[in-house]
Amino acid sequence: MTDARPLFIPVILGTTRQGRMSEHVARLVFDEVVKREGVESELIDIRELNIPTGDAGSGIKDAKFSETCMRADAFVLVVPEYNHGYPGMLKHVLDTNLSEYIHKAVGICGVSAGPFGGARVIQNLLPVMRELGLVTIFWDGNFSSVQSAFDASGKLLEAAYVRRLDKFFKELIWMARVLRHGREQVAAGGE
Amino acid sequence: MTDARPLFIPVILGTTRQGRMSEHVARLVFDEVVKREGVESELIDIRELNIPTGDAGSGIKDAKFSETCMRADAFVLVVPEYNHGYPGMLKHVLDTNLSEYIHKAVGICGVSAGPFGGARVIQNLLPVMRELGLVTIFWDGNFSSVQSAFDASGKLLEAAYVRRLDKFFKELIWMARVLRHGREQVAAGGE
Amino acid sequence: MTDARPLFIPVILGTTRQGRMSEHVARLVFDEVVKREGVESELIDIRELNIPTGDAGSGIKDAKFSETCMRADAFVLVVPEYNHGYPGMLKHVLDTNLSEYIHKAVGICGVSAGPFGGARVIQNLLPVMRELGLVTIFWDGNFSSVQSAFDASGKLLEAAYVRRLDKFFKELIWMARVLRHGREQVAAGGE
Amino acid sequence: MTDARPLFIPVILGTTRQGRMSEHVARLVFDEVVKREGVESELIDIRELNIPTGDAGSGIKDAKFSETCMRADAFVLVVPEYNHGYPGMLKHVLDTNLSEYIHKAVGICGVSAGPFGGARVIQNLLPVMRELGLVTIFWDGNFSSVQSAFDASGKLLEAAYVRRLDKFFKELIWMARVLRHGREQVAAGGE
Repeated sequence: MTDARPLFIPVILGTTRQGRMSEHVARLVFDEVVKREGVESELIDIRELNIPTGDAGSGIKDAKFSETCMRADAFVLVVPEYNHGYPGMLKHVLDTNLSEYIHKAVGICGVSAGPFGGARVIQNLLPVMRELGLVTIFWDGNFSSVQSAFDASGKLLEAAYVRRLDKFFKELIWMARVLRHGREQVAAGGE
Repeated sequence: MTDARPLFIPVILGTTRQGRMSEHVARLVFDEVVKREGVESELIDIRELNIPTGDAGSGIKDAKFSETCMRADAFVLVVPEYNHGYPGMLKHVLDTNLSEYIHKAVGICGVSAGPFGGARVIQNLLPVMRELGLVTIFWDGNFSSVQSAFDASGKLLEAAYVRRLDKFFKELIWMARVLRHGREQVAAGGE
Repeated sequence: MTDARPLFIPVILGTTRQGRMSEHVARLVFDEVVKREGVESELIDIRELNIPTGDAGSGIKDAKFSETCMRADAFVLVVPEYNHGYPGMLKHVLDTNLSEYIHKAVGICGVSAGPFGGARVIQNLLPVMRELGLVTIFWDGNFSSVQSAFDASGKLLEAAYVRRLDKFFKELIWMARVLRHGREQVAAGGE
Repeated sequence: MTDARPLFIPVILGTTRQGRMSEHVARLVFDEVVKREGVESELIDIRELNIPTGDAGSGIKDAKFSETCMRADAFVLVVPEYNHGYPGMLKHVLDTNLSEYIHKAVGICGVSAGPFGGARVIQNLLPVMRELGLVTIFWDGNFSSVQSAFDASGKLLEAAYVRRLDKFFKELIWMARVLRHGREQVAAGGE
């Protein structure tokens, strides 16, 4: 009865900024998600994608990235908060796909130097996630004061984060399973 | 294989305003949704609920409304746009429940006197829907210039609205089925 | 050269909830704002306004409240976060005015039981403030874990809040002065 | 008494997309704004700025762009709606400045292929504008079905847009004047 195939849940590191602390968060999240039974992942660094900047939209896809998104059952976005919004380069990358995302789950890890765990960038992303066809789960990762949560080598200093990620992953995995069932087994209404 | 039980998808008329045109929209939406095979509905007028105003939250539930929400597989919200936000009385009502909504689908019909089909109130509701545990589908109903879309008796003057609702309901019914399967058949991750 | 008339900056307590901790915040904010030179205030408790619930909009104004808003140069909103949105009763009250708010300043104090200082309700209010004609300053009050910031009698336990309010009030007072000059001295463009 | 110096209000074309219809809108807006008495402008095409993509923030400023922003009294942003959010490249550019924007006015022209005049991208930008220190006026430009509003050469086919821009510019010019007075004449509170 249970679907034995693994879920594929890539983690997207959503900034190209030099000295980005979000890279530590993304590595932590990646290390944690692959510990879950039946979950496979891949860490996607948007800095390494091949997407031109003199155009926008599906015409400038990075073929490998789009293929990865197509295979995904869910996503984790690791997103620093820049001026209460999302990093431009992340949006530029996300906008190159569309059908690749539809009816899949996404969980967002907000990252901020200040005390509010990137709560504002998460709110700012919600309408975009919806229009991309993604279902944003109602549990977030919130990394506040990120510069003191990790040491310079990227080692986590506050173990509580791992515990909190547990609920986040449980919800994400549940939604990923449910939507995969939907994509594969439930006919589009009336069609 | 297919789940033969009907889906229960109540329609919530989200304003108490005198002379509300949204009532025409809600009746249209109700009439249309019950035409769908395997769908049952109920039209809930927030004006008729028994919810005090000198308090807020789960302590002032209307028992019958909460029970209806508990039975629901999905919701349609019919919501006029007031100052680019949602009607206060609707939020006051929605905030009385929580577990009743979790892992259920919602589709939003925005209503406006102007030309943008309530697009702004829909955006304003997205973070609230998510926190309530609802999944907002990515197809909306948009009723622009609502005062000229219906005659005084509530008869629809523009047939195109019915056609556009078809895609909205297909997506809502699909998501309702998928999430019901999830609630009933997919174990919460790791638990 | 300097305008010697006092600024009138009422504080609005934006919830009717029983046991509301926001009342402590509103009293603190009121006590602090009236210490500023050249500032007068009034604490408005939305629970005490006389606004019916079976209608919405300007038809159900509380005359005294509207008159207070008309006299105001700026507002402080004290707003708890309910399901990542604003309290319905606050919106119901705000929607009864319109011209009363135009070209005035507003500062928002978000209140939450959790760690993010009501950051999400502030974001949710921004489009509403704008459509009401208010200018939301870019400094907020953020009251996190409000239940431990005050004792049962409403006495502030964390002095840092007072210090942080200082920047908030400086910005609010600046914007209030600037917009009053505009309303009184700068002709509407081309008219 | 009246300030005789001209206002400088640059127009920012907020997308690099090939075949962008927003370019027609930006040219129209530029042509219209310079007709206003006492207004100077400049059309800034973000495609022509020299901003690297392997980093983010103030470290990668385009010196000329930052200088233009510093001189500006207000801005017009011409912004197409991509997946209900803002173009990534626009955000990447905006994030390179901060003090350059503070206490200045901004008016947003939303552009969409669909019927809602970019209303959703405007909502999505509001929290970012605020955090940048900008005051978003409460009148927007809304360009719906933009592909039929202009011919291939960029000639406007629907004269009503010009009339509607009149209110937009009146409000923007008013706010620009008011905030310039504030920046130059009103002391920061208490300092």
